[in-house]
Amino acid sequence: MSTADMERRTVDPAAIEMLSAAEEAQILTAWDRYKAQQPQCKFGLTGICCRICIQGPCRIIPSRPGQDKGICGASAFTIVARNIVRYIVGGASAHSDHAREIAYTLLHTAEGHLKDYKITDSEKLKKIAERVGIATEGREIEEIGKDVAIKALEDFGKYDHDPCTWLNTTIDDERREKFKHTQITPTAIDRSITQLMHQTHVGTDADPVNIIFGGLQAALADLTGEYIATDLTDVLFGTPQPVLTEANLGVLDADKVNIAVHGHNPLLSQMVVYAARELEKEAVSAGAKGINLVGICCTGNEVLMREGIPTASNFSSQELVIMTGALDAMTMDVQCIAPAVKDMCNCFHTALITTSNISKVPGSVHIEFNDATAMESARKIVRIAIAQYGKRRPERVKIPQFKKQVVGGFSFEALMNLFGKINAENPISVLTDAIEAGEIKGVCAFAGCNNQKTVHDDPTLTIAKELAKKDVFLVSTGCTAGAFAKAGLLSSEGVEAYAGPGLKAFIKRLEEKSGLNAGLPLVYHMGSCVDNSRIAHLWTEMAKNMNIPIPQLPFVASAPEAMSEKAISIGSWVITMGIPCHVGVLPPLEGSELVYGVTTQIARDVFGGYYIFETDPEKAAQKLLDRLEKRAWKLRVHKAAAEKYDSTPDQGYEG
Amino acid sequence: MSTADMERRTVDPAAIEMLSAAEEAQILTAWDRYKAQQPQCKFGLTGICCRICIQGPCRIIPSRPGQDKGICGASAFTIVARNIVRYIVGGASAHSDHAREIAYTLLHTAEGHLKDYKITDSEKLKKIAERVGIATEGREIEEIGKDVAIKALEDFGKYDHDPCTWLNTTIDDERREKFKHTQITPTAIDRSITQLMHQTHVGTDADPVNIIFGGLQAALADLTGEYIATDLTDVLFGTPQPVLTEANLGVLDADKVNIAVHGHNPLLSQMVVYAARELEKEAVSAGAKGINLVGICCTGNEVLMREGIPTASNFSSQELVIMTGALDAMTMDVQCIAPAVKDMCNCFHTALITTSNISKVPGSVHIEFNDATAMESARKIVRIAIAQYGKRRPERVKIPQFKKQVVGGFSFEALMNLFGKINAENPISVLTDAIEAGEIKGVCAFAGCNNQKTVHDDPTLTIAKELAKKDVFLVSTGCTAGAFAKAGLLSSEGVEAYAGPGLKAFIKRLEEKSGLNAGLPLVYHMGSCVDNSRIAHLWTEMAKNMNIPIPQLPFVASAPEAMSEKAISIGSWVITMGIPCHVGVLPPLEGSELVYGVTTQIARDVFGGYYIFETDPEKAAQKLLDRLEKRAWKLRVHKAAAEKYDSTPDQGYEG
Repeated sequence: MSTADMERRTVDPAAIEMLSAAEEAQILTAWDRYKAQQPQCKFGLTGICCRICIQGPCRIIPSRPGQDKGICGASAFTIVARNIVRYIVGGASAHSDHAREIAYTLLHTAEGHLKDYKITDSEKLKKIAERVGIATEGREIEEIGKDVAIKALEDFGKYDHDPCTWLNTTIDDERREKFKHTQITPTAIDRSITQLMHQTHVGTDADPVNIIFGGLQAALADLTGEYIATDLTDVLFGTPQPVLTEANLGVLDADKVNIAVHGHNPLLSQMVVYAARELEKEAVSAGAKGINLVGICCTGNEVLMREGIPTASNFSSQELVIMTGALDAMTMDVQCIAPAVKDMCNCFHTALITTSNISKVPGSVHIEFNDATAMESARKIVRIAIAQYGKRRPERVKIPQFKKQVVGGFSFEALMNLFGKINAENPISVLTDAIEAGEIKGVCAFAGCNNQKTVHDDPTLTIAKELAKKDVFLVSTGCTAGAFAKAGLLSSEGVEAYAGPGLKAFIKRLEEKSGLNAGLPLVYHMGSCVDNSRIAHLWTEMAKNMNIPIPQLPFVASAPEAMSEKAISIGSWVITMGIPCHVGVLPPLEGSELVYGVTTQIARDVFGGYYIFETDPEKAAQKLLDRLEKRAWKLRVHKAAAEKYDSTPDQGYEG
Repeated sequence: MSTADMERRTVDPAAIEMLSAAEEAQILTAWDRYKAQQPQCKFGLTGICCRICIQGPCRIIPSRPGQDKGICGASAFTIVARNIVRYIVGGASAHSDHAREIAYTLLHTAEGHLKDYKITDSEKLKKIAERVGIATEGREIEEIGKDVAIKALEDFGKYDHDPCTWLNTTIDDERREKFKHTQITPTAIDRSITQLMHQTHVGTDADPVNIIFGGLQAALADLTGEYIATDLTDVLFGTPQPVLTEANLGVLDADKVNIAVHGHNPLLSQMVVYAARELEKEAVSAGAKGINLVGICCTGNEVLMREGIPTASNFSSQELVIMTGALDAMTMDVQCIAPAVKDMCNCFHTALITTSNISKVPGSVHIEFNDATAMESARKIVRIAIAQYGKRRPERVKIPQFKKQVVGGFSFEALMNLFGKINAENPISVLTDAIEAGEIKGVCAFAGCNNQKTVHDDPTLTIAKELAKKDVFLVSTGCTAGAFAKAGLLSSEGVEAYAGPGLKAFIKRLEEKSGLNAGLPLVYHMGSCVDNSRIAHLWTEMAKNMNIPIPQLPFVASAPEAMSEKAISIGSWVITMGIPCHVGVLPPLEGSELVYGVTTQIARDVFGGYYIFETDPEKAAQKLLDRLEKRAWKLRVHKAAAEKYDSTPDQGYEG
């Protein structure tokens, strides 16, 4: 395959090198499997294949009498709506079930049952406690921790009809009223999930709009889970602060024992960080120069944010980390671990270690994670890696020498610290003032995955560069942060290369006062995919500071390479929160103009946020810019009018 | 279409008549839509189409390099396992969410907030309270009711790690140990559902066996929900006792206002029964001879069991009730209401009234049900029907004159009352003694739906007749009870026509003492689909009485026309409980020999129960008989050996 062909697969130079090697060695990767799946089923692609009962599958052909509906009589709009909200169920389940594990570990820690965990950020814990209505005055931190953990666990399954605490105490008044009014406030995370599965059962809801509103409730349950995960993880392991590291396959070290942590939940990966440090000498005894830990996907983001662990790859290129021949062990927890990694491990010496009782891979080593014996498990994992190092075949080691500097760790609190260097009293105003002054155009948050339907990393990078050029402040989580990391956009190199004059001035002004031993990046890495809650926190505080509803805020989101059910649940709460959300891959909606229209247009009237589906990255960037400019322009017009006529601020949404 | 052709669609004579009329009038029904869907997609039919992320759909072609796995590398066994357990999620969600509504209404009733509901069966309430560990001595019935309702609601969302109360207190010791040992005991219903959705998220579990065990936990959550629904519905509306009624389209009365209640949850349908009685005079004032209430699907079974309301149809023939032109209103709650009923209503004068906020149909009348205003809503519904009666076009009324007598109402307690007429001290032994004596061969429970993949009602009737002939005692719920009702198998007519000599003698012996003003039926109608809990209660008590584990009991189950996700979740807990379960429609499992083998063979070794997939009704009957005979034979052998050698009873499963 020519280089030009390769660039139609990925723009990541390390991935290009590895894919060429894969081609030569006739090793199949996700790229090949994607190609083999073409052409994909149009019924599935457009959402009009229904398998909700076993009379089916039913496939809709609108023009064909009798086949314009399913056997039960379900119309295309019902089928499309049911299918799409079941993606939200999957996403909300994944995010919140992850959060539940964190809450249990905080509970066990606070109860004094665990030797390997501690309450690290007690300041944050107190702030959370105050927010959720738990007394802190004169109480031991463990007592507070226990109450907070229980309060969080109650958000999953309480049977009263009060809103979920984590949602209700983090949104602003305007959204609280909006969700109440539209009856989409979840009262318990798991209940919303069960209810939506029931709502989409055969012969239950046939009304696509009602189904979508059910979906939005589950999406808010997802957000609730994400907030819990972020909050309590920060309490356990510390709230991220700026940290310097690197990204891409070049972070693998041929001379060291290389271990990759893959998945999402940091309860184990954080322990592997500690164990790797502790057992460094054992690696040296085994002939290595030490232990090199790298991250993949969001558990990688978690340890990058808090410990500066480098990122080896994002979702699409995960198999290639093993293909370097230099990876001695990959440990996985949950979500987005392609089963293909096992096939790749079979071709090399790499040990695949599963750790979750709901996430196994046939043929791999299983070391069951349990918070009571976490360090013991982590040590076992590290020792397996050291043993595997001895089986490594040096002649098969091929590490592409590409890596970029990364400045990560921008939790909401870290951002406020940074802004606080300029305005200690009201840090958030540093950002909102710059928007009001027109120095920056607004904010775009990047989130989501990789998807073989796009050129790997390309849409994410293309859109970000376009927006940076036009002075948009950029934040990122998840696999988009991986793309930015590998391309140098999480470092000052990115600022020099791509920032427009306003954005550059804004960043440089911060940089002067930052006190960091590195320049500030172009894109601000806010964490893993559950940490999209940090982004929601950011826009909520911005709107509060500007005294406007969120739907008036010049803030947009983009998931240029959305892939997982989580991406759909995130996107759905993003629009519900009042933010326009671009998605660069067409989800299965085209089978119903009605449902497509609800998500892209009606949603704007009701919530102020809406989906923008656009597969062309250049056009997507332009659409996002248009939205930011329109919102910024309306803000200026309203402000001028308010000053002139002493009128109250407009409460309407983007028109 | 010839009569012979018609008989390849349904064996219900009323349906045959209506389908001929539909053909003449060129009205499409489910039968036509099924035909239009042929041929159905083989990937979907065999479970190897994956749409769990939006890189897909991925379709597996084992022989084609690169397409033998999904883009992420998921094998056919992973994809089939994930797809099938997500059906269990849907089923468990539907059943348990229904149960939750009942629990809330009991809570509100006990708290004194409701004027339309009361605690009807306080004896049953006390028994439940004692079983679940709530004090009853010297307490007001409302206090007990409140505590029981809260205990039930806690089973949905409690965060401790104790087993769900409703499951744990209804199973026997042997199963309790088995579930504990295999780690499938649910600790909270909704949590099991969320966790299984997480487990099946992209890149989480790739191990088909582990996924299936996750599915079994959700299936036991389904059973927990069903137990709660049955228990608390009996408390609110009374535990069913034998009742005389009729079934099939002939129950519609051209001279009366005809109202159909359709769906599953009796909270509303029961109120419609009261309102119809109350407003009889208004119907007479409107020129009708009164109000005639009929049931469809399981909300129909609920009011049949408790109030003797006749059944008009089961799932497949639901549209035909409207096509009689004599139905003035159809009110629906949740589940299995084909959206096609709205299209049919559009051709006639029938008003379709939706009542649940998670179950709407565009274009229908929505009267939101709320337990605080239930009777008010029920009256509105009845008055709409009366008003619609005035719009009925008599020339379009065509009621097939087919109906059969039905003796229903056989709750577990009603069966024990009946057996108690022969042995008051130990009623269940009447049944087990007859099995041990070889008078009857065992028990077969029929449950499940209709499915257009079979001839409507035919497999259900064929298998039952075969088994009856061979002296198998038959119980039934759901749409199979509908099939039996319409065919006369729920009356003594069935005994005369189909019972073998042993079964006939057994039934006649009971009949002599029954004290009922009707003969006993061939098949014992135990209720709606949540009332499969009554069947689990029956086999558990039988096993206890015989002092054997359930997997040794000559008890089998059959869902000859399974269709919904609920059927799959029910079947899955049936096999987990140790009962062989026949399914007459192939679920999407054939894409993985491994998964197919686990459900049909490995399950037997682990749980003693397993699936028998057989689409030929005659063969299915023979297979079920074989299982019963084998179990009965083993029991006799073990008993003889135990007597001879004074050894302990064998604890192994059916070999």
